[in-house]
Amino acid sequence: MSTYSGAGVDVAAADRFTNSIASRVTATWTEHVVGTFGGFATGITIPDGYTRPVLMMTTDGVGTKAELARRLGQFDGIGHDLVAMCVDDLAAQRATPLGFTDYLAVGALQPERDEAIIGSIADACRLAGCALLGGETAVHPGVMEPDQFDLAGAALGVAEAAELFDPGDVRPGDAIIGVASPNVRSNGFSLVRSVFTESDLRDSFEGTTLGDVVLEPSVIYAPTVLEAARELPIRAMAHITGGGLPGNLPRVLPEGLTAHLDVASWEIPAIFGIIAERGGIEHAEMFQTFNMGIGFALVVPAAHAESTLAAVTDHPAWIIGEVVPGNTVRLQP
Amino acid sequence: MSTYSGAGVDVAAADRFTNSIASRVTATWTEHVVGTFGGFATGITIPDGYTRPVLMMTTDGVGTKAELARRLGQFDGIGHDLVAMCVDDLAAQRATPLGFTDYLAVGALQPERDEAIIGSIADACRLAGCALLGGETAVHPGVMEPDQFDLAGAALGVAEAAELFDPGDVRPGDAIIGVASPNVRSNGFSLVRSVFTESDLRDSFEGTTLGDVVLEPSVIYAPTVLEAARELPIRAMAHITGGGLPGNLPRVLPEGLTAHLDVASWEIPAIFGIIAERGGIEHAEMFQTFNMGIGFALVVPAAHAESTLAAVTDHPAWIIGEVVPGNTVRLQP
Repeated sequence: MSTYSGAGVDVAAADRFTNSIASRVTATWTEHVVGTFGGFATGITIPDGYTRPVLMMTTDGVGTKAELARRLGQFDGIGHDLVAMCVDDLAAQRATPLGFTDYLAVGALQPERDEAIIGSIADACRLAGCALLGGETAVHPGVMEPDQFDLAGAALGVAEAAELFDPGDVRPGDAIIGVASPNVRSNGFSLVRSVFTESDLRDSFEGTTLGDVVLEPSVIYAPTVLEAARELPIRAMAHITGGGLPGNLPRVLPEGLTAHLDVASWEIPAIFGIIAERGGIEHAEMFQTFNMGIGFALVVPAAHAESTLAAVTDHPAWIIGEVVPGNTVRLQP
Repeated sequence: MSTYSGAGVDVAAADRFTNSIASRVTATWTEHVVGTFGGFATGITIPDGYTRPVLMMTTDGVGTKAELARRLGQFDGIGHDLVAMCVDDLAAQRATPLGFTDYLAVGALQPERDEAIIGSIADACRLAGCALLGGETAVHPGVMEPDQFDLAGAALGVAEAAELFDPGDVRPGDAIIGVASPNVRSNGFSLVRSVFTESDLRDSFEGTTLGDVVLEPSVIYAPTVLEAARELPIRAMAHITGGGLPGNLPRVLPEGLTAHLDVASWEIPAIFGIIAERGGIEHAEMFQTFNMGIGFALVVPAAHAESTLAAVTDHPAWIIGEVVPGNTVRLQP
């Protein structure tokens, strides 16, 4: 006799899991949330003050950082990575995060791990000021290993139509401000996994282990950079994700303008040096795969560069380059 | 020398894939979309006519129906499953779908398969009247088999605050209208996979193969049931997903009221009989795992039952039961 639970999907365990996370999820709910936990969808209203609100949606995952987290048994930071990947994409479009949904796929439910993951998503949502409106925990027995998991999410934000960035406003000579990423964030992990063995990840590094450093959770930039955009005449913003600075800056610059970056102008975290050295990875490949210490970039008129640096108080930031004519990002030296 | 491409992530191939799907994606864009393809997030404005709009978000995946699609090499319907799972959750909350994002995780990019998957998501978004606003295609080399994939999505909808259903409006004696699901939709596939071998799935069935029947794409109910809700005094609606009728009807009924269903009142598609027979699965287990031929349910005052049936013209529908005092759904016989 076949049962769903015999096929690897224990509905009662899934219900227990849902109950165990309910208070963590609803703790993220702002006064704008409409609905109750367990409905088919959860509602949220747009905060007052928007004249012509534009809703923004985006989606991302944590890539195979999840696989490293599994191998090292560390799940407390992975939700920060997920939320950062999504809400910082919203922020680059000048959208304030409102809501978030997560998708967790597992081979089998593991209550301690799964509560840690959802708890870290909820914590990160609170940091980002958005409500965790829904989630799906999918059990895929026989398709994923019992302890394997994958994590993705989607974020909803709101922007004022008249305040959306227009690439046409960017001018040659504009300054590019880089905001520090002290770590790898959540891109390039297939390369990280190919460079380091599991034994390498237990090596001492910067007072902890290499594994701890590569798994460090991503910074969430949205609150800081959205506040800066309210105060200063910022012309474009870019979230530095897959593709690095050369791949992401062109997404917000007009045809015919590009970025000239002085690579010596900021501190590249030591972890990137170790990755390059152990993997024998060329300079250009490193910059096209990793953030290299810059997780978010702002484009401002040069006259406002110093005041923008002063406004980004939560994270180290530097003038890393300028907008120049051209089509391909130039890295110097 | 290590490279990202050597680690299994071919950025150039990913760019080619993104370009190949651009026109399919933007073909879903309604006049409300704000933005350009390739931005960090895409915007959408709320259609005119809402007094107090409530945004709704939900997320879901296709479960291990993806694994069966992989084994049978059929990818044209899986996007309909994904969109149906999400937008019909919105519809149950009376939210009109506005936007959608997809998350496709793969072991390796396979352009023909991946274009078929994204194309089917785009087609289903057009059917549902929502814009495909973003997507993430994540390559997980060494974690997933090259031909393995997983598919999840998130949907954004909008409802009028004053029109949201209130479970407190449901009364004993209200009629429950069931809308036909001719197939398995996208729940219970771990059980389907445990019941049928790959050879079984090649068996002839209803003029085609068993595999074709279990992979049939899900009906998308949102346009039909939202239109019915505009015309008739519907008190609650439920999307029949994981947990079946006994698991999903209670989500929209108040404490102390439940559903009494006459199982003989609708046609249960033959596929469920074959699953039960081959798997030796008990009646109750079938109803708790599968939709058993009812994919969506509407609760209306009994006096409006016939007019509701008349309004749901796109799909077969039946009066399948009534609301009664109690706490557990009763299935008769």
